[in-house]
Amino acid sequence: MIQDTTICAIATPPGYGAISIIRLSGSETFSICDKICNKQISNKPTHTIHFCKIIDNKEVIDEVLISVFKHPNSYTGENIAEISCHGSTYIQQRIMELLLKHGVRLAQPGEFTLRAFMNGKLDLSQAEAVADLIHSTSKAGHDAAINQMRGGFSSELAQLRGKLLQFASMIELELDFSEEEVEFANRNELKNNILNILVVIKKLISSFQYGNVIKNGVPVAITGRPNVGKSTLLNVLLKEEKAIVSEIPGTTRDAIEDTISIEGILFRFIDTAGIRHTTDTIENLGIERTFENVRKASIVLLLIEATDNLNSIIDQIDRLNLSDEQQLAIVFNKIDKADISIVAKLENDLLNKRQVKTISISAKKLENIHSIHQFLLENIRHKPQSDNGIIITNLRHLEALKNTFSSGERLLQGMETGNPGDLLAQDIREMLYHLGTITGEITTDEILVNIFSKFCIGK
Amino acid sequence: MIQDTTICAIATPPGYGAISIIRLSGSETFSICDKICNKQISNKPTHTIHFCKIIDNKEVIDEVLISVFKHPNSYTGENIAEISCHGSTYIQQRIMELLLKHGVRLAQPGEFTLRAFMNGKLDLSQAEAVADLIHSTSKAGHDAAINQMRGGFSSELAQLRGKLLQFASMIELELDFSEEEVEFANRNELKNNILNILVVIKKLISSFQYGNVIKNGVPVAITGRPNVGKSTLLNVLLKEEKAIVSEIPGTTRDAIEDTISIEGILFRFIDTAGIRHTTDTIENLGIERTFENVRKASIVLLLIEATDNLNSIIDQIDRLNLSDEQQLAIVFNKIDKADISIVAKLENDLLNKRQVKTISISAKKLENIHSIHQFLLENIRHKPQSDNGIIITNLRHLEALKNTFSSGERLLQGMETGNPGDLLAQDIREMLYHLGTITGEITTDEILVNIFSKFCIGK
Repeated sequence: MIQDTTICAIATPPGYGAISIIRLSGSETFSICDKICNKQISNKPTHTIHFCKIIDNKEVIDEVLISVFKHPNSYTGENIAEISCHGSTYIQQRIMELLLKHGVRLAQPGEFTLRAFMNGKLDLSQAEAVADLIHSTSKAGHDAAINQMRGGFSSELAQLRGKLLQFASMIELELDFSEEEVEFANRNELKNNILNILVVIKKLISSFQYGNVIKNGVPVAITGRPNVGKSTLLNVLLKEEKAIVSEIPGTTRDAIEDTISIEGILFRFIDTAGIRHTTDTIENLGIERTFENVRKASIVLLLIEATDNLNSIIDQIDRLNLSDEQQLAIVFNKIDKADISIVAKLENDLLNKRQVKTISISAKKLENIHSIHQFLLENIRHKPQSDNGIIITNLRHLEALKNTFSSGERLLQGMETGNPGDLLAQDIREMLYHLGTITGEITTDEILVNIFSKFCIGK
Repeated sequence: MIQDTTICAIATPPGYGAISIIRLSGSETFSICDKICNKQISNKPTHTIHFCKIIDNKEVIDEVLISVFKHPNSYTGENIAEISCHGSTYIQQRIMELLLKHGVRLAQPGEFTLRAFMNGKLDLSQAEAVADLIHSTSKAGHDAAINQMRGGFSSELAQLRGKLLQFASMIELELDFSEEEVEFANRNELKNNILNILVVIKKLISSFQYGNVIKNGVPVAITGRPNVGKSTLLNVLLKEEKAIVSEIPGTTRDAIEDTISIEGILFRFIDTAGIRHTTDTIENLGIERTFENVRKASIVLLLIEATDNLNSIIDQIDRLNLSDEQQLAIVFNKIDKADISIVAKLENDLLNKRQVKTISISAKKLENIHSIHQFLLENIRHKPQSDNGIIITNLRHLEALKNTFSSGERLLQGMETGNPGDLLAQDIREMLYHLGTITGEITTDEILVNIFSKFCIGK
């Protein structure tokens, strides 16, 4: 974690466009700008913009705008310059080469944010939220990330830590006077405090299920027999989404394949290609693998031709072998070609026999597709979250919270059995330790490398 | 060409990255910023940067930096704000939607630069150079574009126009006094002036051949019999280039397929796939189409197995049916497997029979590949350019210069035959008109639409 060099990176998305930004951070930032520009940048005040030419050995590489951010009033807390150049890949490359020639080092992924963390500009959970924010593709994911980046989670944790520290200092005080056998800390009051803290932590932990969903998308499987219209339905769902997104140029290119966002929630379709290409007569490993994939889904849409019969449908349901936590809907496709009264009877029989939700659509004719949207949304409506609306989306935070919770339970148990103060103090220190790893009060190089290597270049 | 609305566009390359820039231009720019930000932007001085939150209906969309450029000190000459947001596609989309909601219009491609032109910030040839600069992928293309953008070509044209205007005013003066039959303008001096102007224009016209090459790349064809190693050679040439370019992350993604840059010159390999997949016995239209493609190349590399015999090679050369302007090299591949004395004799015989350059390589073992580079470079070494090093790269400019030249020739002819002043004045006005279309003193909506529609969004 060497911080004494000045680093640079292309901070805008790769490729060419109207503008690209090359970012420098470090103590030498402005002296290097002075060397490559036709005018002095180092004497300019912070938060100002300057038009100048980038010169390499008398050759003008580009006419650019340089934004000046002076230590400590910058993202990293160091001197930062942002060079806004013409978005040609050639120019980007030439300016980067010129900077390297002047001793600037290529930034590692996330190194700007790492420096911001090192300089106390943001804590570790806020830094992680920056990466989440950049990768967010849905409203729910964005909202959780921006709340975390703006310190919502951090302040919740700070409160918990504050209470624990107060508790700890009382216990430590007792230890100082241990020979006199006083109890400064009212044990009942303390127990209640710890209980309250554990309730908050429990809520944070249970918010992860939803947090994971909004970050990675709700896994959905569309399954059913060959030619029942699975890929037609998938395409209809995806196309509708893409038509909405593509109105503004430049916002669609990175759309992840096979995901849709409904009312801000991301749904991710699991590849069930195996079933698509299999006939009923071939029972082989391929089918088994497809069924395994179906089992990874939170929501399963079993597509049925409206002319299918009850026993066959029940057989298909049972073969899916879904767990209680998976939500299933039977989707009758090609409803435009079916006898409505027969379908109504089928629906009724299915409800009686398997208590299963049914939806009737025509994927081809775009009939009743909104019922699928509704079903998907209903089945993630249970949003467990903490009292402040904070949602945990990060596996690392989940683990730390679980560890905190375990130490807390041990602490409570210790108090029940009348453990001495020094043992209680040990449990409290453990709780503080685990909470501290989330925001980075306590950290290791390994944790940092692991976190920041997931960032994109230039952030 | 409505200029009264405020426009916006994503100015950075599409996709996600550390930073994205959303650009606004127009009179309402800052009042709209005030509406979507948590602090007032409209009262801030020009060329300053402000940290603020973008708010949509109490929801924080992002924490951003806003750069303020006040009329007339901006790229377009209008009020400009550049919103530097987190580079998430979701955030880009949300901010764009918010701007549209507040009455900002999506910018057309090149509309910012069009406004810059309309407001006299740059002339038309400079505006065209901006687009060329962004698309430049080689040193030579970049150098020509930046010289043109910085006004090198414009000032050359201004000089020519200045001389012509002086000339025109003399002639017009004569016309005012036409009844007295005076000749203010010394005909011989004038003729010399026009001749000098035509020499300059001629040089500019002839620079286009090279200008076109540096802009679009030198077309190169690698041809030869199946399995002689054409795709291996192509891959070797391309890979070497990519290895160099890819050192700096973020600069390679948009690399155009099948082009390489050698010492700053772009070479573009023409698809000769037809020959790759054809055996000698199949004589069909596919082969003919391939030969047609070979005929589009400026440089042709005929790949030959070093064990092939003289007559077969001569047959292959003759079948290519190249024009005198095309440069051919016979490339003996797999030289590591051949008898060097036999190859030497073949080379000698070929030189006698067809005066053709030969190169011996092993594409697979990367032997002597630099000779190919050298051959490619040698054959574009003739760089016709104007005295000031100006190179015409734009077909529109070429046409205008050719028209100017024709009018100039007619003018000279008229002077030879003693045409009266009003006819001469007409020819001079025509020359001024054609030169004026280049820099945009004279223009039409059609020309403007045609030019700016080729720009990228956000510029």
